[in-house]
Amino acid sequence: MKYYAAWKEAKALQWKAKVEITLKRAVLDPQGIAVKNSLKALGYEEVDQVRVGKYIELTLEASGRKEAASRVEEMSRRLLSNPVIEDYSYTLQEAGL
Amino acid sequence: MKYYAAWKEAKALQWKAKVEITLKRAVLDPQGIAVKNSLKALGYEEVDQVRVGKYIELTLEASGRKEAASRVEEMSRRLLSNPVIEDYSYTLQEAGL
Repeated sequence: MKYYAAWKEAKALQWKAKVEITLKRAVLDPQGIAVKNSLKALGYEEVDQVRVGKYIELTLEASGRKEAASRVEEMSRRLLSNPVIEDYSYTLQEAGL
Repeated sequence: MKYYAAWKEAKALQWKAKVEITLKRAVLDPQGIAVKNSLKALGYEEVDQVRVGKYIELTLEASGRKEAASRVEEMSRRLLSNPVIEDYSYTLQEAGL
């Protein structure tokens, strides 16, 4: 058990990040409007607002939550989103070894 | 206060649904592969798997959580996702009146 624990500690941890990317409130979302109109046409009259965004799931190795968060934050800002017109948010969870 | 409570109860409640749509595990995700390669090229060597999906935020009126859930479930199945190749999941939260 001792050896396993040492090995486990030496190994980098696996993290799963779920990144949600949405257009900023002030930016027009034609795809959202199209989806809303389609929903209304199908009889879903109760729908009010629809916004369409991207959802990115990724797994990465990092030695701790803090490191994983800072890397995912950086990736979101640099590549996954366009910070001029988009907002991003993410959640992190441990995915075992 | 009594009148307000009665009025509040009569009004339909506003719900906010966040729907995440992802390709099924068995379906090839070229967009995910492209994002993964771009991340690696930018120096994020720790990234392992990337899957790209859609994220849809919608507000709707429903008299309770159960009704809201069943409507969102139906919308996800009928319009928002393609159940042959995609999975969906959603969360619901009350958005006030």
